[in-house]
Amino acid sequence: MKRVMLTVAYDGTNYHGWQLQSNGISIEEVLNRCLTELLKEPVQVIGASRTDSGVHAFGNIAVFDTQARIPGDKFSYALNQRLPEDIRIRGSREVPLTFHPRKTDSVKTYEYRILNEEFPNPVKRLYSHFTYLPLDEKKMNEGAKFLIGEHDFKSFCSVNAQVESTVRTIYSCEVQREGTELVIRISGGGFLYNMVRIIAGTLMEVGNGKYPPEAVADILKAKERTAAGPTAPARGLTLISYEFPELKDSSERQEIL
Amino acid sequence: MKRVMLTVAYDGTNYHGWQLQSNGISIEEVLNRCLTELLKEPVQVIGASRTDSGVHAFGNIAVFDTQARIPGDKFSYALNQRLPEDIRIRGSREVPLTFHPRKTDSVKTYEYRILNEEFPNPVKRLYSHFTYLPLDEKKMNEGAKFLIGEHDFKSFCSVNAQVESTVRTIYSCEVQREGTELVIRISGGGFLYNMVRIIAGTLMEVGNGKYPPEAVADILKAKERTAAGPTAPARGLTLISYEFPELKDSSERQEIL
Repeated sequence: MKRVMLTVAYDGTNYHGWQLQSNGISIEEVLNRCLTELLKEPVQVIGASRTDSGVHAFGNIAVFDTQARIPGDKFSYALNQRLPEDIRIRGSREVPLTFHPRKTDSVKTYEYRILNEEFPNPVKRLYSHFTYLPLDEKKMNEGAKFLIGEHDFKSFCSVNAQVESTVRTIYSCEVQREGTELVIRISGGGFLYNMVRIIAGTLMEVGNGKYPPEAVADILKAKERTAAGPTAPARGLTLISYEFPELKDSSERQEIL
Repeated sequence: MKRVMLTVAYDGTNYHGWQLQSNGISIEEVLNRCLTELLKEPVQVIGASRTDSGVHAFGNIAVFDTQARIPGDKFSYALNQRLPEDIRIRGSREVPLTFHPRKTDSVKTYEYRILNEEFPNPVKRLYSHFTYLPLDEKKMNEGAKFLIGEHDFKSFCSVNAQVESTVRTIYSCEVQREGTELVIRISGGGFLYNMVRIIAGTLMEVGNGKYPPEAVADILKAKERTAAGPTAPARGLTLISYEFPELKDSSERQEIL
């Protein structure tokens, strides 16, 4: 028996998110089916991030146990031949049998893309959120600085979320312009439900002048969902990477990003 | 009566190309329907480039005649509200009644995108052609130089194409790396059927070492389709822009690219 970790990239457009759903096909379901067919034994993956419907990933993580004798690093090739082309395995490796992707300390990095021009470019519509309102990335960066560090992010959490603590630590949050796109890149030890999308919606309000950058500090203090901006749409969000400091060479593996 | 020119961007993934087809929906058909509904008079657009199934556009051109009193520059907003989100009008203007987009001298620019890494990134699959074979963009650029100027491009034309002359003029052809993507950008006074895709397929063979760069000169001389590389897939191709020197300020309009 061994435990294998997969680095999974997907276009979330045609899926009802990561987690098994009764109302539509999920990434988890497709991985389970393809692995079960490939290995001829029942396989159930455990995902690191249960991304929402329409959210994309470049480096989500799935682990599963198998009796198969295939070396850990060979699963990606075999699996990619069976997967639909909107899901790709970017790498695979054996991990300790005790490794659980949601119960292990990790650094998660997300990107939120905003297409900011007069008319939306059709080829970018599935992977960015469009606004024609001019956004000032300098102001957005000023606002983003208030989020860095350990804070109670209750204002940036969906009201329905059931969590013991809303305190989280953000390591970095930066806004960069790439041509007509603004990219919010954020890394942290953990994120609340919808947190990145609410941060994106709030920083957009800073960028279009509705709030000054300092308002982000007040929004944090309010500890009230209604104090923050709207939840930006799923299509702009991509889970970029997971790094697990306790897994040796995981940081090296991520450098190919 | 006036003639209006539209600058049209689209994601070609879900269309059977520009031209009206019996076997599937086309860009032209959607534009005709939306314009006819908007203007409450029968409208038929004339397209500049009748792009193939799966090919994308950032700046294709359509013209139509109308009795409507709407100013030429106001059509884009009205039309975008009716169009599906994979087709966008980036600009509109009145042009002389004698203007025909295929019978007027123009400079056409295309981009062909190649995703060149170990595994295909799912979110780029619809807008680039994937190869894991490492491509050398310097060699591709050397090969591309042989295409610049006036040449008989018979080797780079689909054998089925019925044209009087296969002589065309290429003004520029460059290959640039953008992260994991290679972009072939080519401008010319005119292109034969499948010419950009055959050039892309041929430059890829130069990039992966199958041909030396100088082979491109020999392929031109052969005037034989079989001498060139394969036709690269439609999904990597985007029609970027049309410039019409005889229309004043058309070059200014293109600068927003």
